[in-house]
Amino acid sequence: MSDGILRLSHAEVRVPDLELALAYYVEVVGLVETDRTADKAYLKGWDEHQHHSLILTDSPTYGLNGLGFKVMELTELDRLAARVEESGIEVTRHQPGELDLASGHIARFAAPSGHVVDLECGQEQVGNGLSLINPPPRPDDLRGIHPPRIDHIFLLCEDVDGTTSFFRDVLEFRLTEQIMADDGHQLATFLERTHSPHDIAFLTGPNGGFHHVAYWVDEWSDLKHAADTCAHHGVDIDAGPTRHGATRGCGLYFFDPAGNRNEVYTGGYWFDPDDEPTTWTESEMGRAVFCYRGQVDQRFMTVHS
Amino acid sequence: MSDGILRLSHAEVRVPDLELALAYYVEVVGLVETDRTADKAYLKGWDEHQHHSLILTDSPTYGLNGLGFKVMELTELDRLAARVEESGIEVTRHQPGELDLASGHIARFAAPSGHVVDLECGQEQVGNGLSLINPPPRPDDLRGIHPPRIDHIFLLCEDVDGTTSFFRDVLEFRLTEQIMADDGHQLATFLERTHSPHDIAFLTGPNGGFHHVAYWVDEWSDLKHAADTCAHHGVDIDAGPTRHGATRGCGLYFFDPAGNRNEVYTGGYWFDPDDEPTTWTESEMGRAVFCYRGQVDQRFMTVHS
Amino acid sequence: MSDGILRLSHAEVRVPDLELALAYYVEVVGLVETDRTADKAYLKGWDEHQHHSLILTDSPTYGLNGLGFKVMELTELDRLAARVEESGIEVTRHQPGELDLASGHIARFAAPSGHVVDLECGQEQVGNGLSLINPPPRPDDLRGIHPPRIDHIFLLCEDVDGTTSFFRDVLEFRLTEQIMADDGHQLATFLERTHSPHDIAFLTGPNGGFHHVAYWVDEWSDLKHAADTCAHHGVDIDAGPTRHGATRGCGLYFFDPAGNRNEVYTGGYWFDPDDEPTTWTESEMGRAVFCYRGQVDQRFMTVHS
Amino acid sequence: MSDGILRLSHAEVRVPDLELALAYYVEVVGLVETDRTADKAYLKGWDEHQHHSLILTDSPTYGLNGLGFKVMELTELDRLAARVEESGIEVTRHQPGELDLASGHIARFAAPSGHVVDLECGQEQVGNGLSLINPPPRPDDLRGIHPPRIDHIFLLCEDVDGTTSFFRDVLEFRLTEQIMADDGHQLATFLERTHSPHDIAFLTGPNGGFHHVAYWVDEWSDLKHAADTCAHHGVDIDAGPTRHGATRGCGLYFFDPAGNRNEVYTGGYWFDPDDEPTTWTESEMGRAVFCYRGQVDQRFMTVHS
Repeated sequence: MSDGILRLSHAEVRVPDLELALAYYVEVVGLVETDRTADKAYLKGWDEHQHHSLILTDSPTYGLNGLGFKVMELTELDRLAARVEESGIEVTRHQPGELDLASGHIARFAAPSGHVVDLECGQEQVGNGLSLINPPPRPDDLRGIHPPRIDHIFLLCEDVDGTTSFFRDVLEFRLTEQIMADDGHQLATFLERTHSPHDIAFLTGPNGGFHHVAYWVDEWSDLKHAADTCAHHGVDIDAGPTRHGATRGCGLYFFDPAGNRNEVYTGGYWFDPDDEPTTWTESEMGRAVFCYRGQVDQRFMTVHS
Repeated sequence: MSDGILRLSHAEVRVPDLELALAYYVEVVGLVETDRTADKAYLKGWDEHQHHSLILTDSPTYGLNGLGFKVMELTELDRLAARVEESGIEVTRHQPGELDLASGHIARFAAPSGHVVDLECGQEQVGNGLSLINPPPRPDDLRGIHPPRIDHIFLLCEDVDGTTSFFRDVLEFRLTEQIMADDGHQLATFLERTHSPHDIAFLTGPNGGFHHVAYWVDEWSDLKHAADTCAHHGVDIDAGPTRHGATRGCGLYFFDPAGNRNEVYTGGYWFDPDDEPTTWTESEMGRAVFCYRGQVDQRFMTVHS
Repeated sequence: MSDGILRLSHAEVRVPDLELALAYYVEVVGLVETDRTADKAYLKGWDEHQHHSLILTDSPTYGLNGLGFKVMELTELDRLAARVEESGIEVTRHQPGELDLASGHIARFAAPSGHVVDLECGQEQVGNGLSLINPPPRPDDLRGIHPPRIDHIFLLCEDVDGTTSFFRDVLEFRLTEQIMADDGHQLATFLERTHSPHDIAFLTGPNGGFHHVAYWVDEWSDLKHAADTCAHHGVDIDAGPTRHGATRGCGLYFFDPAGNRNEVYTGGYWFDPDDEPTTWTESEMGRAVFCYRGQVDQRFMTVHS
Repeated sequence: MSDGILRLSHAEVRVPDLELALAYYVEVVGLVETDRTADKAYLKGWDEHQHHSLILTDSPTYGLNGLGFKVMELTELDRLAARVEESGIEVTRHQPGELDLASGHIARFAAPSGHVVDLECGQEQVGNGLSLINPPPRPDDLRGIHPPRIDHIFLLCEDVDGTTSFFRDVLEFRLTEQIMADDGHQLATFLERTHSPHDIAFLTGPNGGFHHVAYWVDEWSDLKHAADTCAHHGVDIDAGPTRHGATRGCGLYFFDPAGNRNEVYTGGYWFDPDDEPTTWTESEMGRAVFCYRGQVDQRFMTVHS
C-alpha cells in the first residue's frame, strides 16, 4: 500500500454562457475566481489553497469535460499512471501549465466510465486568503453560499460494476456503499480515498454522464442558508435540504444556469479501510437516495434537460 | 512517502473509581461499553467499528496511561517501529490480545514528551451497531452526548519543539498550526495525519501531562446538546461552547468524575500536505485558544486539580 | 379593543386505532400523555402547563373533531360568545369538566368553515414537569421529536373569504398573509392572535377539512432531528424539512398512523397589529407554500387518503 | 383586563462618539439606520416595521437615557398613564414627533427604578424592506449579525421588589422568574407582556443602571454567527454563546464601542398568564444566569467600566 490519490482536486464543467455561469458561481455559490482566460474561468472554495477546484469552459452545451485527483508525490503519479497503462488504458503525460493555468504534472486518461480523468501533482498553491499569522476565523468578503471546499463528484456510466472495479483495483479507491439491483449488478457505488463516505460515486446511466459536483459545507444550518440563497436568486432547487440514506450525509441540490447540477453537502462519517461496506437493495433505493421522503423522482435520476 | 499512521486510535485514561467513571462515560458522554475486565473498561463512540477508542483503567489517581495510533498494514508498523528505534527510542512489540482485550499487533514506546505511545495494527472490529443492509441513519438507543468517534488528543510536555520534531520527522505527522513564544520556541503545536487540523497537539507543561481527549460531534448544535446534557447531570463544564482560533474548530470542555478533561469538538478544516502551517504569536495566545473571549484562564492551561 | 383570545389551546383529532395513535404521539412525536378514558387520550407538549393540547378520539375514520382557543377571563369568554351569537351563530355553554377531562368553561359553536370551535377559559393546569425552584433546562425523559408546545392549525373550507371575515370581525384575529386567486377571492389566509405569523390558517377545500396541526420546535436543527425520528420509525414524511414562503417559517410534514397530517414548525416572525399583511398572487402559490422547491404537489393540497 | 402594553418598543442609549457607535451598530450588529439628526441616530432591526427600536444619542458618557413600550390604542395609553399617575408618579404627555423623529403619542414618566419610561402609541411605520407582494424570505443587503428585532431590556435598580411591584401592579406586567436572596427580597426579576420569558428584567444595583438591551435572533447557530462577527471586528465579547438558567434562553453578550452591553438572544419559552413563576435561590444564582458554567464573574454583575 502506498499514499496514492489524496483527494478529488477539481472538475471541469461546460457552460454555454461563461459570463452568466461565472456570475452564478461567484455571487450565488460564493466561489472565489482565481483566474480567467478567453474561454475558461478558474474558481475555488474560499478555504482551498489550490489554484482551482472548478474550471468553467465555454462550450455549446452543459456537462462535464473531466475531473482531477490530487496526488502529492511525482513518484506516486508515475506509479498510478503505470497501473492505469497496465490495465490497458492509454495515458498521456503533461507538464505543469500545459493543460491549464496553474496546473501541475498531469497524467490523463479516459476511465472505463467514459470520463476524462486527470491525476495531478503540484497544482499551484494560492492560499486561502487568510493571514498565516494570527488569522481571523474567516475572510470578511464571503458572498452567497461560500462553501469552503470541494467534496465529491457523482457520475453516470453504463457499467457500474466494471467502473467500480477499475477505481478500486487500479486507482486504489475503497468501496463504502453500494446499491445492488435484484439481478446482482451494482446500480450505484460510493468510493473514497479520504475516509469520507465518497470522493466519487457512480450511478447507472449513459457513459460520460454527469450527475453533480458537490462542495462541502460545515453543517445542517448551512444548507438552510444555501437554500435561502438559491431561493433569493431564483435558482432552480432540485431537492433538499434533506438527508441521504447512503452516506448518511445531508445535501441540497440545485442547477447552475447551464443546467449542471450542483450539491452542497455535509455530514457523513469516517470510514476506516477495514470497515465493511454498506449495501442497499434495489427496493430500498429511494431511501438510499433520500432518507426522509424515501422516493426518487425521475428528474433526479437523470441529467438535467 | 508511505501510508504510515492512519489516525488516533484510542486513549487509556486512569480513573480512581471505575464504576463511577464508567457510568459517566456511558450515561453522560454516551459512549458504548464493549468489554470489561476487573480493572479495565473498554468503550467506543457509537459509529466506531473498532473495539475501543477509550480504555478506563482503575488507578489511584487520574491522568493518561497512554495513547494509540491506528496503522493499516503490518509492514507499515514494522517500518515506523524501525524509525522510532533509529531515533534512539526503545520499542517493544506485542502480539494481538497481549496488552488489551481485542488489541492488535502493537509497537509500544515512550515518546520524548514522556507519553506511552502505541502503534497498533489489527485491533478487532466490532461494527457500529447498524445493519450492513439498508441501515437506518442512526441506532435507536443513543444516550447522552453520543459522539460518533474519537477525534484528537491534547498533551503537555516540557520540550514542545523537540517533541514536535519527533512526531514530524519520525512518525510523519504534519504541522498545521503553532503558537510561538516571543523567544522563538514553540509554546504549542498542532499535528495531523488525517488532514484535519489536529490528531494530536502539544502544549508546554510537565512531561506526560494530559490536557484532554476529544470526541467528534457533527455540528455546532451538538455542542449545545452536549452542554445541556452536562448541565443536566451536574457535570463540571470547563469552557464553551466556543470557537478556537487555532484549528478554527468549536468545542466544549468538561471533566469526568476523576478530573480528566474531555472535549467534544466539531468544525476545523481540511489540510493538504502542501498547505502552509499557521502561526500564532505569544501575545495572541488567548485568541488562539478561545477565539471569542480572547482570554485563557489559568485553570484551562493546567491539568485539573 | 380587549384581550380576547390568547392562543390556540388544543385540537381534537379522530383516530380509528386509539392505541396505535397514542403510541405514535408518545413515542414518535414525543407528546406527554396526561389522561385517558375509554375512547379518548389527552396529550400535551412537554413544556405546556395546560392539561392537554391534543385530544385523540376513537372514531371510524381520521379527521378533526374540533379545536379550542384559550381565553384568560370569563368576562372575555362571555363577550366573545355574545359576538358570535350576534353574528347569527348558535353558541352552547358548558361547565368545567362537562365536555372533557380537565376542561374549563367552554363556549362552543360551529364556525362558517364547518369546524367546531371552542372558546375555553380555565382548563386545568398540570405544570410542565420541571421544578418551580432551580429547574434544569429540560426534563430528562424526553422521547422522539418532543416539541415543547402547540403552535397553529391549518384548516380547509369552501369560502375562505367569508371564514376569514368571521375570524377577523367576530373573533378579533388579525390577517398576516393571504394568497389571492386571480379572480380576487382568497385562496388561503393566515390569521393570528399571538403576534406570530399564524395561529390558524384556511385553505380552499371542503368545509370541515383538516390540513394539519402544528407543534412548535425551537430551531432548524430540530427539524432534522424530527425527520430523523420519523425516518427511524418508518413514519410517512409528506414534505420537508423546508421553508415556507408565507410565514417565512420552516417545517416538516408527516402523517400519523390514521392519516392525519402533522407539522413541526419553527421560525416565522413577530407581527404588530399595525403591520401590513403580505399578499401572494396565485401564480406564486407554489413558492408561498414551499419557498425552496417553488412547487406544491397535489397530495399536499388535499387531505390525506 | 385590557390589552395594555404590547411589547418593548425601543431603547435610547448614550454614546460619546456617535459616528463610531453608528458604524458599529450598522456594520457589526447589522441594524438598519432609518434616520439621523445632529445628535441622534435612529436604528431598527431589519424585520421591524417601526421607525426605530434603538436611538443613539451623543452624550459625554455611555448608559441608558430611557426606554419605550408600544401601546396599540390611544385609549389604552390614557388608561395606563392614569394608572401611573394614581400610583403617585408624574406623567408628561407629548404629541407625535415632539420628542423624537417619527415618534407617536407618548406618556413619559420616571419609574421607581430611576429609568425614564415612555408609553408610546403610533410611532411611524416604515416597513421591513420586503415587498408586500410575493416577498423573498429576507432582504439581500443584510450585514453583520442582523437580528430581526428587539427582544428585551435588562436594568439595574436598588429596590427590585418595589420596582417589580410597580411593573406588575401598575403596568400590568406578569412575573415569569425571580432570583430570591436568602433574606427574602428579590435579587432579580423577569417580567413579560409578550408571553416570552422577559420583556424587561431587573437586577439589584444602582438606580437607573443599564445592564443590556437584547435583540432577538432565530436560533443557536445565529449566536455562532454573531460571535464570529464580533471576533472578526475585534468587538469585546463579555460572555457566551451560552444558555441561561433563568428564561432557558441562549445568548451572547458583547460591548458597543461606548461600553454599553448588548445581547443577542434566542430560545426561551411561551408563558401563559396562568403559568406559575419560577424561583431561583441565591445559592443557585450562578446557574440562573449561566446554566453551563454555573458561575457569574464580577464584570457581568456590574455595568461596564
